Order: sequence, then structure tokens, then C-alpha cells
Amino acid sequence: MSTKRDAVPDIPKAADYLIASKTCELMSLQYFLQMGRLVPCISSLVHGLQRERGASNVFLGSAGETYVNERQVLSEESDRLRAEFEQALAEIHQELTGHPVSSRLLNQIASALHSLEGLGELRRCVVARKITAESATQDYSCLIHHLIAVVFEAADTAVDPTIAGPLVAMVHIMNGKEFCGQERAVGSAGFSSGRFSRALSQRMAHLCEAQERCLEVFSNFADAGSLALWQEVCGHDRESEIARLRRLSLSVGSFKDPGSQLADQWFKLMTERIDALKRVEDSVEGCFHASCIERFGDARNSLAHQETLIASLDTEGASTQPVLVLCDSGSGGNTGDAFSSGGVSQQTGRSIFDLVQEQTRRLRQMNDELQSAREALEDRKTQEKAVLLLMQHRRISNDEAHRVLRKLAMDQGKKLSDVARALVSMADVLK
Amino acid sequence: MSTKRDAVPDIPKAADYLIASKTCELMSLQYFLQMGRLVPCISSLVHGLQRERGASNVFLGSAGETYVNERQVLSEESDRLRAEFEQALAEIHQELTGHPVSSRLLNQIASALHSLEGLGELRRCVVARKITAESATQDYSCLIHHLIAVVFEAADTAVDPTIAGPLVAMVHIMNGKEFCGQERAVGSAGFSSGRFSRALSQRMAHLCEAQERCLEVFSNFADAGSLALWQEVCGHDRESEIARLRRLSLSVGSFKDPGSQLADQWFKLMTERIDALKRVEDSVEGCFHASCIERFGDARNSLAHQETLIASLDTEGASTQPVLVLCDSGSGGNTGDAFSSGGVSQQTGRSIFDLVQEQTRRLRQMNDELQSAREALEDRKTQEKAVLLLMQHRRISNDEAHRVLRKLAMDQGKKLSDVARALVSMADVLK
Repeated sequence: MSTKRDAVPDIPKAADYLIASKTCELMSLQYFLQMGRLVPCISSLVHGLQRERGASNVFLGSAGETYVNERQVLSEESDRLRAEFEQALAEIHQELTGHPVSSRLLNQIASALHSLEGLGELRRCVVARKITAESATQDYSCLIHHLIAVVFEAADTAVDPTIAGPLVAMVHIMNGKEFCGQERAVGSAGFSSGRFSRALSQRMAHLCEAQERCLEVFSNFADAGSLALWQEVCGHDRESEIARLRRLSLSVGSFKDPGSQLADQWFKLMTERIDALKRVEDSVEGCFHASCIERFGDARNSLAHQETLIASLDTEGASTQPVLVLCDSGSGGNTGDAFSSGGVSQQTGRSIFDLVQEQTRRLRQMNDELQSAREALEDRKTQEKAVLLLMQHRRISNDEAHRVLRKLAMDQGKKLSDVARALVSMADVLK
Repeated sequence: MSTKRDAVPDIPKAADYLIASKTCELMSLQYFLQMGRLVPCISSLVHGLQRERGASNVFLGSAGETYVNERQVLSEESDRLRAEFEQALAEIHQELTGHPVSSRLLNQIASALHSLEGLGELRRCVVARKITAESATQDYSCLIHHLIAVVFEAADTAVDPTIAGPLVAMVHIMNGKEFCGQERAVGSAGFSSGRFSRALSQRMAHLCEAQERCLEVFSNFADAGSLALWQEVCGHDRESEIARLRRLSLSVGSFKDPGSQLADQWFKLMTERIDALKRVEDSVEGCFHASCIERFGDARNSLAHQETLIASLDTEGASTQPVLVLCDSGSGGNTGDAFSSGGVSQQTGRSIFDLVQEQTRRLRQMNDELQSAREALEDRKTQEKAVLLLMQHRRISNDEAHRVLRKLAMDQGKKLSDVARALVSMADVLK
């Protein structure tokens, strides 16, 4: 009795749901404005961890002789960046968990936080030299992987193409840069020991190719400014030197003149490359942030505009005829068999019908434009799945699995993503 | 100063985000429990409108001589079903708009409500015979189309495969039944006039094929009970009679013995078929409802279980070592190049790490299982898009466009959805 409102709810009107649809877009953009605060923190933390990984590697490789201070300084820097990340996360915690958007994103944040909780123990092992350089590298890489995956999942939840595009560019430059970091570590190991074993050489090839694939996808989604920066990186003199050293690493066996000269040169060049990639990454992040703000402003104005329009229709409404709906054959676009012609004539003035149709068209267009970003993310998921399948079925390593996949694609003259898709679709049969 | 909580937010823990991930799943299922209340209302309202459309058709076809009362009674029945739909919508209005999930779904509800607002005017035109039978049919069909599209959009927002599957089955049986209703109307026009024009005959062929395609997709996603019901429909004696009349309709020209006998027989058989399909639809709806309740119960228990586990880990936690994370190469699955081996040993007991990994695996598996439902919906969107493109480029009718598409598929020996996809991907070039 006290809840008259609950007992007899108002009958909802088309205009209410049009406003709700616009409001939903706005809320989603607000969510990305918040999420967006995490992205630069993750980017910087990953960069810090990559540097700490490099220093730890050298420290362990030298049996604790060199890079004692450097490692210490860089690990303190990582702690500062980690605190910034956790602070940003704490500040948007309510937003992320109050209106949760994606179970996968939240679980990926849990993975990243859990990995970070193990960082102290990893460092104790490094300092006490209870761990090999290789294992330490793997643990750092795993932590970095979990952090980048947070950005991947964020990109995967975006429904607005102007948000999804920059995020896809972001996740691919981050991954490309991470492959570059791993390539630096593997190359350092080879050059400083004076020879590349078959396994090391193959790993170099894999990291180089994987990096190029990521950066190719990145360049498909990057804004003009970031793309120009990236092209500067590609055109830099350093690149031909890197290419020369890469070729050396592919010829298995000992060098004529090992020394530590090549190792130093390699480390220096690749560090420059990584820093240059970080600047491209910062540019992409800036573009993503600007897109979020711009789209949010647009959506807020559009909502206000619609509310004004609808209010004006309401006051005129009493005198106008109810309108019969003519079916735009694409409208709703999804079900049944809409008619292409006929029906009863449309009102000539602007009506709720026009506004709803306009929103339908906009949402459909946004969905179409989102398609390529979605496909890039799907391709990546499918390739990872195919690699995992190959590893399990044939009991081979990750590198080996990537190589098998690439060979399949080459032999069949198909795209890597198509081969991966075919493999995954055959998985049930192969079991 | 008064907002100490805001100023120094707690640093979030992995366990918090694991719980948040589970809570997000639960909220999504709760949303579908609410949305699910709309589905039977839409199903019944569509059925009511299909019957009203049929009666209006006969009424207009007889120049207002017959079905005067029948039409009136059925339109009152539709009003009752419409009130039920609007009541259900009003009851979940808060849920739908407070935590909005999909702009497209909300806008589709706006389209449906707006179409319903035009129903009164349509009926006045029918009663006053100011509209042709053909135009009235088209307007009713358009309204029905908007209502079914609401279920389509609901299916498109589902992230849980046990929810998405039944919704995909639902939307396809609804569409199949609607094609059947349209076929009844077109066939009635042909049989009662004693001849099928070329256009009418082609329309019959299109509606029959479109119907079969929908019911094929339906049968891929239907539960065992609904599938058995559907197979009963297929095996019924009535079907061979319907097949015979369909063949007649495909031979353009006059019949030897027109009369109204064939028309009556056709109308009766198809009405029986539609009613039988409605019973299959009810069964699918029941299965969808049961899935929602079951999954919601499971998810609630799982969340409670995790909370208990995490609490017990917290109390033990003080004594256990922090765990270094070993990277399962599929973990996160999406970014970077996870390592397949090495790393530091895992804790043997159950840890937050295990729980997070378990959730990662579950979410990945759910996503994989969702794939086929997603593809079925995508195929449908792509086909509609291809049809719209053909209509616009070649200025042909909806039927004609469907026929062109089918012919392309047949000539190239490809699936309809593949041909549609190829066409849509070429659209930019064709502009």
C-alpha cells in the first residue's frame, strides 16, 4: 500500500527507452574515462619492470658482480610505478566493481595484482642469486604479460569504435615493445656468450617475427601522430644496425670475434629502440585519452540535445496524429524479413520515430566500424589458442608451436589467423 | 578532511577482484532473469498480432464482409497481451535502465514501443478500409519484426553460453514462425484469387526457404525437449499436404479448380502449423527460463563458496609464503608471449592463484562455448546487411535481393553466410 509506485509502474514510452539507450552509451564512455586512468599507469609500470628485468638479467649473468646498484635503483623505481598503478586502481575501484562490465577484465586485474604480490619474493631470489637469469626473465615476463592482458581485456569490452581502435593500437604496441624487450634479453645472452645455440637462434627469429606482426596490427589502428612517430623509429639509422645483428644471431654457431663488444652494442641499440617504442606508446595513450574525453563530451551533448527535442515533441504532440511506422528494411536489421516498400505514409516533421531511427542507424554504423577492432582482438585470441593446442597435442614449446603455425600458413599460402582458426576449429576432431 | 576514505583508498587485492569478477557474472545472470520475463510476453504478443493480422487480411480481402467480429475479438486479445508486455517492461524498467547493458537493446525496445503506439491508428485504417490488405499486412509484419528484434538484441548481449544458446534458439523459432505466418498470408491471397503471379510465386518460395533456414538454426541450438516437439511437427501428416500446396503455388498461372476450397485448406493447415510452432516456442522459452534460474543459483553458490575459501586462505595466509606465479601459457591467453615452462615452483596447496586460474579457465571456456551462438547471430546480421546492400545498389526488392544472394551461394557452391560476408566486405569497393 505504501508502494504505490511499485504496484502500478508507469507504462514505459518509446522516448524513455531512446533516452535510456543514449544514457547507456554515456555510461559506457564514462567507464572508459575511468578505466583510461589505468592505461598510462600500466604502460609505465610495464616499462619499469622491463628495465628492472634487464638489470636483473645482467646482475645474475655476471654472478652478482655488476649492476648491483642499477638493479636496486630500478626496482625502487618499479615500486614507485606500482604504487601509482595501485593508487589509480583504488581510485576507480568503486566504478569498476559497482557497475561491473566484464568478468574477464576483473579477473585479469586479479591475475595482475596477484602477480605483483609475488614480485617481492622474486626480487629476494634474484638478490640472493637463488634463481637463474633465465627463470628470473620468465617470471618478470609473466608479470608483464598479466599487466598487458588487462589492457587487452579493456579493449575487448569497448563498444565504441573510437575507443576500441586506440586501445587495440595500444595493446599491440605494448606487446610489440615487450617482444622487443625479450629479444634484447635473448640477444644479450647469445652475444655475450659468443654463440647462438639452435634454440636461442630460433627464439630470436620467433621474437622478431612476433614483434613485427604486433607492430603491423598497431599501425593499422594507430592515429596519424603516433603512426608518424613509429615511421620515424623505422627510418632511424639504428634499425639497419639492429638488422645486421639480427642476421648474425640467425647463423647458429660461434662468432669470429665474440668479445663483449657486440653484446654491449646490441643492448644499447635495443634499449634505444625500446625507449623509442615507449614514446610511440605514450603518443597512442594520449590519443586514447583525448578520444575518451571527446566522445564523452559529444555523447553528453547529444543526450542533452535529444532530451530537449523530445520535450519539444511532447508539447507539440497533442495536436499531431499518431504516426504509423514505416519499416526501413534495415531497421533492427537483425530479425525477420522487414519490408522494403509500402506501409502507411510517414509524418513529415521530426518525430520520435525519426529520432529512434537515427539512433538505430548510428548504433549500427558504430557496430560496423567496431568490426575491424574486434577482429584484430579475435585473431590474437585464436592464435594464442592454436599455439596452446599445438603445445598440448605435440608436447612442444611455445616457440616451436609458433613456428609450426607460421610454417603451416606459409605452406598453404594463407594468413596466419586463418590457419590458426582452422586449427582451433579442428581441435574437437583431433582430441 | 572529512573524506579520509576517498583520500586514501585501500590498495585493492587480487582476492577483491576475483570476487568482483564472480559478482559481475552473477549480476549479468540476474539481468537475464529480469529480461527473461519479457521473452514470454513478447512471444505471446507476437502470436496475438499474427492472428490479428490474419483476420484483418481476410476482413479487408472480403471488402469488410467477413471476419468483422473475429478481427474485433482478436484485436482485443492483442491489447490484453500488449498490456501484459508493457506491464512486464514497467516492472523491470529500473533494472534495464539503472544498470544499462546494451544501447542497442534499449533502442530496440524504443522501436518496438513506438511501433505499438501506432497500432491504434493502423486498426482505425483497417476498420474504415482505408488501407489495402497488402499494406496492412506489411504494417503488422513491421511491428512484429520490431518485437522479435528485442529478443535478438537480448540474445546478442548474453555472455553466458547456457543463456545465449536458448535465446538463439528462441529468436530463430520466432522468426521461422513469423515467416510461416507471412507465407500463410501470401498463400491465402494466391489460392483465393485462383492464381499465383510470378511475384507472388517468388515470394512464396522466398518465405518457405527463409523459414527453413531459421528452423535449421533453431534446431542447432534447441534443447532436447523442444527439438523432439519440433520433430513431431515435421513428422505430422499435415506437412505433406502443405508441401503439395506449396508446389502448386510455385507453378505460376491459374489453377484448374480454383474455388475457395484450396484457400480454406491452406489457411487451416498453416494455422495449425503456426499453433504447433507456438508450442515449440513455449517449450524453448521454458528451457531458457529454467537455464536462467539454474545458472543464477550455480553462480550464487559459486560466489559464496569462493568467499568462504578466500576467507580461509586469509586466516592461513600469515604462515604461508608469498607465491611466485608460474605462467600457464594460455593464461590471460591474449597478449604477449607467455612462457611454457620454467618459473618458480608453485605452492602445492590451494591458493588465490589457483582460484584466479580456475576463474580464468572457466571464463575462457564459457567464451569458447559462446562462439557458436555469436556466429549464428552474426550470420543473421551479415545476411540482413547483404540484402540491404543489394536492395540499395540494384534497386531491387527484399525478395529479389534474397534470391540474388541464394543464387550466388548456389552458383559458387558456398554457404549463404559466406557469400553474404564476402558481399558485405566488398561493399566499400562497390560504392
